[in-house]
Amino acid sequence: MPTLRDLGEVEVLRRLAAARRPPADTVVDAGDDAAVVRAEPGHDLVVTTDTLVEGVHFLPAWLAPAALGSRLAAANLSDLAAMCARPRWALLSAGVRAARETESLLDLQRGLAAALEREGAGIVGGNLTAVEGPEWFGLTLIGEAVRGAVWTRYGARPGDLLAVTGSPGRAGAGSRLAGALGEGARAPEWAPLLATWLAPVARVSLARALGVAGGVTAAIDLSDGVGGDLARLCDASGTGVEIDEAAWPADDLLERAAAALSATVERLRFGASDDYELLLAIDPDARGPCAVVAERLNVPLAFVGTFTEAPSVMTVRDAGGGTRPLEASGYDHFVGAG
Amino acid sequence: MPTLRDLGEVEVLRRLAAARRPPADTVVDAGDDAAVVRAEPGHDLVVTTDTLVEGVHFLPAWLAPAALGSRLAAANLSDLAAMCARPRWALLSAGVRAARETESLLDLQRGLAAALEREGAGIVGGNLTAVEGPEWFGLTLIGEAVRGAVWTRYGARPGDLLAVTGSPGRAGAGSRLAGALGEGARAPEWAPLLATWLAPVARVSLARALGVAGGVTAAIDLSDGVGGDLARLCDASGTGVEIDEAAWPADDLLERAAAALSATVERLRFGASDDYELLLAIDPDARGPCAVVAERLNVPLAFVGTFTEAPSVMTVRDAGGGTRPLEASGYDHFVGAG
Repeated sequence: MPTLRDLGEVEVLRRLAAARRPPADTVVDAGDDAAVVRAEPGHDLVVTTDTLVEGVHFLPAWLAPAALGSRLAAANLSDLAAMCARPRWALLSAGVRAARETESLLDLQRGLAAALEREGAGIVGGNLTAVEGPEWFGLTLIGEAVRGAVWTRYGARPGDLLAVTGSPGRAGAGSRLAGALGEGARAPEWAPLLATWLAPVARVSLARALGVAGGVTAAIDLSDGVGGDLARLCDASGTGVEIDEAAWPADDLLERAAAALSATVERLRFGASDDYELLLAIDPDARGPCAVVAERLNVPLAFVGTFTEAPSVMTVRDAGGGTRPLEASGYDHFVGAG
Repeated sequence: MPTLRDLGEVEVLRRLAAARRPPADTVVDAGDDAAVVRAEPGHDLVVTTDTLVEGVHFLPAWLAPAALGSRLAAANLSDLAAMCARPRWALLSAGVRAARETESLLDLQRGLAAALEREGAGIVGGNLTAVEGPEWFGLTLIGEAVRGAVWTRYGARPGDLLAVTGSPGRAGAGSRLAGALGEGARAPEWAPLLATWLAPVARVSLARALGVAGGVTAAIDLSDGVGGDLARLCDASGTGVEIDEAAWPADDLLERAAAALSATVERLRFGASDDYELLLAIDPDARGPCAVVAERLNVPLAFVGTFTEAPSVMTVRDAGGGTRPLEASGYDHFVGAG
C-alpha cells in the first residue's frame, strides 16, 4: 500500500479530490486558490472550527481512520446544532506523517464526508501538511441560519426549563473504561458506552426541528461535560440552574460503569465527557411541542431542571428534596481534567 | 510571565478574546458554540485555509510571534487575492505547548489581527489545543466576491499576457540564505530578501483594484514557486506559456544572493519560494489599464510572457531568441523540495 511519501503531495491531493463530491451550491470546488460557495439569501453564516489531536483527542488504537473522520464531523456538526444552523461547507486541515498509508487518509475523508453528507454538508477544500510528531485533523464548518433564528448561550431566562438529549456522561465513561480496562473495555456489555465515545452523533436534525417548533431560548453542546458546559450557559445568560435529580435520565449501564470504575454515577454524568448531546433552555410553554418533536425524531429528550435568578449558582435537588452544589468541572487543555 | 498552563484554557481564551475586536458584520462573536456573521447580498463566499507548522513552515529563531501571526494572515489573504475576493472573517486554530508564555500567544494574535484588519478582515473564532511536539497555527479565512467576478486558475487563453507582481524568488532566497549563512543572513544587505521570506504582504488591494478594472482572465498566488504554480495555472487552463526572459523584472539583489548561494538566478526566480506574489493572465487589451492600476497602487507589475496553445508546455525565451523548457519544480510536503 503506497504511503503519502511514495505518492507525493500532488497525487495525494488528486486522489482526495477524486474521492469526494462537492456539496450543493459549490461554485468553485477545491483545487483553486480558494473554494467559492453560494449561501441562501436572507441567511446568516454560522462558522466553527475544531481539531482532533492524536494522543489528546483520539487514540489510533481505538479509532479507525473512517471513524476518526466521522468523529471530527460530529464535533463540528454539534457546534452548529447548538446554534440551530444548517451545516453546508467544510474545509479539512490535516497534519499527517509522510509514512502514513494513503488509503488510510482516504478512509478518514470517506468517514468525514459521509457524516457531513448525512446532514447535507460536504468538503470544499483544505490543506495537507507533513508532520513528524502527533497527527492532527482540523475541520472548519460553515453553516447557515435564517437571520435572527440562531440559538446562543446567553438567552436562558429564569423559569425556562433545562432539557438534555441522550444520557450525558457515556462518552467519558467509555473513555475511562478504555483507560482502566484496556482491551477489556471492548466487552459487549460496554459497547454502547464505547460507541458514544468513539462514534458520537451530533443532534443536528433535532435542533433544526426544534428551531421550527420554537421555544428554545439558549443552547450549548456537550463537548466538555455537563458541569462545565452548563456553567458556561448560565454564566452567559446571567442565570443559575437547579437540576432535578429524579428527572435525570436513568441509565443502568452508566451506573454499572461507575461501579466498574469505582466512581460515582454523578461524577460520570456531570464530569468531563464529550457526548455531543445538547443542553437546551426551553420556554415552559413550549415543553409539550418540543417533547413531541423529539419523540417524532426518536431522540431522547429529558426535562431535568429549571433556570433560576441566582447568577451562575448551579444546584442539584435530590429525590428527598435536599439540594447540593453542582460542580463545574471540565477538561482544560493546558492543565488536564478538572 | 505566566504560561498557558499557569493560566488555564478558560483564562487564556478570555484574554485572547479581550485583546481583539470583532470585524464588521459579526452577529455573534467568538465565545458561543459558533460565530455568526452576515455576508453581503449578491455575493459569493470565498473560503480558504492554510496552516503553518513549526520546523516545516517557520523557524521560531527567525520569526517572532507577531511576525508569525502576520505571516499566517498573508498566506491566507494571498489565496483570497488570487480569487479577487474581499477578506472578511477568520478562524484561528492553534496547537501550542502548555509551557508557552501567554503573552507570546497574544502577540501572535495581535500580529494576525493587525494584518487581517489592514485588509478589512478580522478574527471571529477559533480553537486552542495543547500539543507536546511542534506547534502549528491554522487559519481559515472567509471572503466575499461579487457573483461571477471571482478569478480562477482555469480562465487563461492562448494570447493572454502573463504578468507577475514583485520579484518572485526573494522569499526562497531569504530562506536559503538563513540556512546557508545562519546569523550572517541578518546582514543589512540581505534585509529585503529576509523581509520577503519572513514578512510577505499579500496583494489584496491590487487584486481588488484589478478586478474593478477588468481584463484578468486567471490568477494564482505564488505559495510554491513560479515553476510549480505556473504549471498549475497552465494545467487548469489547458494552455502553455512562453516567458520572455528579457521582460522579467531585473533584481540585482537576487543575483547577488544567487552568487552567495552558488545557485543560478533562474533557480531562485522559478524554484521553490513562497513569495505570495500573484501570477496573472491578462487580456492583451487590458494591459494598459492594468499597468495604470498597479502604478497607482505602487505595486511592481511586469508583463513577462504570453500564454500559448500548447497544453502545459512552459518555455523561456532568452534575449538571443532561443528557447528552453521551464522546469516545474516546487515544494512537496511529503517528499521535500523538488
